[in-house]
Amino acid sequence: MLENDAIRILDRLECLRLLAEVPLGRVVYTRQALPAVLPVNFTLDEDDSVVLYTSAVSDLVHAVDGAVVAFEADEFSAATRSGWSVVVTGRAGVVDEPAEHERLSQSGPRSWMPVRDGVFLRIESELVTGREIMSTRTTG
Amino acid sequence: MLENDAIRILDRLECLRLLAEVPLGRVVYTRQALPAVLPVNFTLDEDDSVVLYTSAVSDLVHAVDGAVVAFEADEFSAATRSGWSVVVTGRAGVVDEPAEHERLSQSGPRSWMPVRDGVFLRIESELVTGREIMSTRTTG
Repeated sequence: MLENDAIRILDRLECLRLLAEVPLGRVVYTRQALPAVLPVNFTLDEDDSVVLYTSAVSDLVHAVDGAVVAFEADEFSAATRSGWSVVVTGRAGVVDEPAEHERLSQSGPRSWMPVRDGVFLRIESELVTGREIMSTRTTG
Repeated sequence: MLENDAIRILDRLECLRLLAEVPLGRVVYTRQALPAVLPVNFTLDEDDSVVLYTSAVSDLVHAVDGAVVAFEADEFSAATRSGWSVVVTGRAGVVDEPAEHERLSQSGPRSWMPVRDGVFLRIESELVTGREIMSTRTTG
């Protein structure tokens, strides 16, 4: 894949606007020295960080708390072969301040799955990259 | 997230059947010691490996040739909060046998983007895991 007319690099504001439009993304991390990925629903917080809600005892929390992870969301149309993808890269951490937890309990994401001992996991948006793929049929 | 009634673990055959239904997935790998992810279109080959078509000089090929990567595909409905995700984990490698390259040129994937010096990249389906998330509204 080449950087050319078919690809437009998105700036940070465009990326964040697109992220705010979709409910689901994927946490990309390392688990037992292997690449791992888990789809999760999320919200963007006021500081543009990505916030998830999951179980305190989940494998995800165990693997990513304190680590740098990537978080990806995208929307593509197979019909037009076009779409966009955005990747946030930054440190992940459990929200442990009670006031923050309380605030997110009101405004933050609710997991699509039942959660026991729920915690909010925040991914700082230290690096935000994205690209839009425009329709091209030149390669078949 | 918990393993419970809302989640059904998919067996390998179910996973491969679902993978065959979607055109797009995401390669999950490590780039410069950081987690990285790239959406790509793909096909499943006869041996159930995942095959992509990309540029020989792409960052992706440079980063993953010979490495163990994950490949994820999913389909979710925000309306019903249900869907599935499948992850293939295995070694990635450029297809360098001329006969295999020729065969894939006929039957393999075509990139949604223009590709220069195209190569096929194969991800062995050494580990195939998946889960289906059934609709649940119990947590709001």
